[in-house]
Amino acid sequence: MADAKAITPRDQDFSAWYNDLIQKAQLADYSPVRGCMVIRPNGYAIWEQMQRALDEQFKATGHENAYFPLFIPQGFLAREAEHVEGFAPELAVVTHGGGKELEEPLVVRPTSETIIYSMFSKWIQSWRDLPVLVNQWANVVRWEMRTRLFLRTTEFLWQEGHTAHATEEEAEVETLLILELYRKFMEEWMAMPVVTGLKTESEKFAGAIRTYSCEALMQDRKALQAGTSHNLGQNFAKAFEVQFQTASGGLDYVWSTSWGVSTRLVGALIMTHGDDKGMVCPPRLAQWQVVIVPIWRSEEEKGATFAAAESMVAELRAAGIRATADLRDGLKPGAKYFEWEARGTPMRLEVGPRDIAAGTVMAARRTGGKESMPIEGLAERVKRELDAIQAGLLTTALERREANSLRGPKSRQEFIDFLENEGGFVYAGFCGDPVVEQEIKEATKATIRCIPNPEFRSPIAPTTCIWTGRPATVEAVWARAY
Amino acid sequence: MADAKAITPRDQDFSAWYNDLIQKAQLADYSPVRGCMVIRPNGYAIWEQMQRALDEQFKATGHENAYFPLFIPQGFLAREAEHVEGFAPELAVVTHGGGKELEEPLVVRPTSETIIYSMFSKWIQSWRDLPVLVNQWANVVRWEMRTRLFLRTTEFLWQEGHTAHATEEEAEVETLLILELYRKFMEEWMAMPVVTGLKTESEKFAGAIRTYSCEALMQDRKALQAGTSHNLGQNFAKAFEVQFQTASGGLDYVWSTSWGVSTRLVGALIMTHGDDKGMVCPPRLAQWQVVIVPIWRSEEEKGATFAAAESMVAELRAAGIRATADLRDGLKPGAKYFEWEARGTPMRLEVGPRDIAAGTVMAARRTGGKESMPIEGLAERVKRELDAIQAGLLTTALERREANSLRGPKSRQEFIDFLENEGGFVYAGFCGDPVVEQEIKEATKATIRCIPNPEFRSPIAPTTCIWTGRPATVEAVWARAY
Repeated sequence: MADAKAITPRDQDFSAWYNDLIQKAQLADYSPVRGCMVIRPNGYAIWEQMQRALDEQFKATGHENAYFPLFIPQGFLAREAEHVEGFAPELAVVTHGGGKELEEPLVVRPTSETIIYSMFSKWIQSWRDLPVLVNQWANVVRWEMRTRLFLRTTEFLWQEGHTAHATEEEAEVETLLILELYRKFMEEWMAMPVVTGLKTESEKFAGAIRTYSCEALMQDRKALQAGTSHNLGQNFAKAFEVQFQTASGGLDYVWSTSWGVSTRLVGALIMTHGDDKGMVCPPRLAQWQVVIVPIWRSEEEKGATFAAAESMVAELRAAGIRATADLRDGLKPGAKYFEWEARGTPMRLEVGPRDIAAGTVMAARRTGGKESMPIEGLAERVKRELDAIQAGLLTTALERREANSLRGPKSRQEFIDFLENEGGFVYAGFCGDPVVEQEIKEATKATIRCIPNPEFRSPIAPTTCIWTGRPATVEAVWARAY
Repeated sequence: MADAKAITPRDQDFSAWYNDLIQKAQLADYSPVRGCMVIRPNGYAIWEQMQRALDEQFKATGHENAYFPLFIPQGFLAREAEHVEGFAPELAVVTHGGGKELEEPLVVRPTSETIIYSMFSKWIQSWRDLPVLVNQWANVVRWEMRTRLFLRTTEFLWQEGHTAHATEEEAEVETLLILELYRKFMEEWMAMPVVTGLKTESEKFAGAIRTYSCEALMQDRKALQAGTSHNLGQNFAKAFEVQFQTASGGLDYVWSTSWGVSTRLVGALIMTHGDDKGMVCPPRLAQWQVVIVPIWRSEEEKGATFAAAESMVAELRAAGIRATADLRDGLKPGAKYFEWEARGTPMRLEVGPRDIAAGTVMAARRTGGKESMPIEGLAERVKRELDAIQAGLLTTALERREANSLRGPKSRQEFIDFLENEGGFVYAGFCGDPVVEQEIKEATKATIRCIPNPEFRSPIAPTTCIWTGRPATVEAVWARAY
């Protein structure tokens, strides 16, 4: 199981490193179904922690969970023109059910706007029924040609929020509220800094009037879109006749939003923090924050170290720390260390007979460093260590991102060279012309990740477009991306 | 919204009552996709509470969550002969993906044994890898001809546990451990008593060697199978080549189990506790255990009652009680009472200016009874009330079931008459002959729900078969069922 040579080093082949790490850390596995993955317990536990944290925050901001059908009548997608154009090439289609050919084929949901708006039209009559704030945790299917575990799979798990409002302003407020909720979650839980901002027309969601996204930079200096929040305007409301009586007695279409993050975030976590030894999981998202490994030679020592390990587990759990003990027989301590390191467990406590005699344990951080700690007051000390690890991961990721960001290149050539030779985020002026956007993409393989929100903009706004020299209408962030 | 005439009385038409209640309590809705339902927030919240309670217990007994693909290659199902025969008529089949016809059609999982065992064969090599104890929360699809909200829908949500063991004994222990976990959950959380026992050959899961089930009796005296736990023997291990090296160096197939409960449990909850006013939700599963309704006439009274309601919500929540306040304007208190009763909220606290002056609130239980309570020490008092409501619901359900159970009918005619005229569980001797089982089913529309586990057997074991007069091999429980 613990094979030292299994993980390709990052700087040798990042993509091979990523795949090796996932196998080694037992986060996921390939399935017999093309493009679909199996999420193994160690990976699923991270997703569960993510779900718990996000779900609490959705509920705290007034959202309720619901569940809508997996299948969507094929005709529904066609009602919103851009939407069907965007998703038609990626659909999985059910043509037979219960042994018979269906009269109208059903598509497996690639996203649920259409089925949800068809229900909203039934539920919403008056301004009193608004806002409607629902969220769904579900699986969705998008037929992908080239797949990568967690990053791009035919089936993936996600949450999709769908809200309906009485005014355009409220819908925009909701869109930005969620964008900010995502940003904070990614920083505070995933220890992954992101730049938030507006997508250009060519990159927005099929059917939205505005798409905002969270953009993270991975260790290979490629960007990853980690979450999106869409202002749908009245597009879907018109397509599905979601009308309501206004407070003043008129009739209007609702203004709506949708937003989502997916199991792709587990991939983002790996590529933000992982190292050549395997996964590095931020403490707030780790299945086990602390693993205790007893070290013994004799049966007597085994009894004593096991008892010490178990009492530490109990003490740590009572303090709200997710702790476990690795009491497996027939596996040497070194092999266990190796395995828990690969799995990304933030802290390891080693306890042998001499530690017990001295009233201490040896504590090793997954992010480096090893020191003896008194058993007395262990829980408090471990809590502080976990907080420090969490904070340290964010600092490291933030420093790395900033070291790999270029603000205000002087010339088109500097822009191209940076993307070609170094990689990372480039902040530069843009004239706003979609033709230029496409030209840059073809020349550099980089796309506009977003037009940053104010807090991410450069101190001095660029005045000219980096590509055309024409006046800049905005500052944009470019990168090659997943 | 609150339409007094909307719910058909139970004794007039139980089936219409059930459908009306679900609409009125906003638990679920029909979707535009035949046979698929939408689970609305009030219904989904119950499912979430169920998930939380069960998930904790699965984890406490060593199980881990994972996620396996939605799609299964059609050929996989055929590898276990009984399994494919059981599920083939109910499959939804994906024939096209990404705009192309697939080489091998994919079925949408009706259950995941086949895909999971194909992974187990990759993960399990040695006895050291055993047991493997995984659970999955997922959606599954079974093409149903006649559907009922929650009870029988084309798509439903469930959990499916899948475990692999080194010995036959361990697999049987696991099967029974889960059966008992389900029974306790149904009694202690759902306040729904169940009889547990073994299914006959004709009713067991397609591919199992033994199926155990939890059988509940609904208010219309029809039985509902509420959960099943299957001992699969080595059937799937052989079909998917899941072999392991034994401790003694030999090679053997693993012994395995699977078990599940689904959103059907929400239907069971409705039919166990609901009344003509709507849903009655056991406190431990209610989204909101307590709703506080302020009563005011003037703006001044509004300010005071809102402040009181909000401070009570805070106090109750601090004590771990799920409390909310209904502060909606433009809706009279009576209309609010009506709505929260329909939704099944266990307790309502009414607070008006006179209550505030007296330092009291008026407390109404959904199960009947209304009395004034001091605001001082409210949380403790409410906790006791909620516990009493929970206990009372179980007692009522248990008494109803026992009143509708017939033990030891004297003759075939008494057996028939009871099923025809009264309905309920009949405990009687059975010769064990499948032909007789089928004959009884045709004559009475009743099926053997289970061969009860010891604790549910009659004090005096029947000696003769109720139908044939031959020696009884077991005591069985019959009922007409959902």
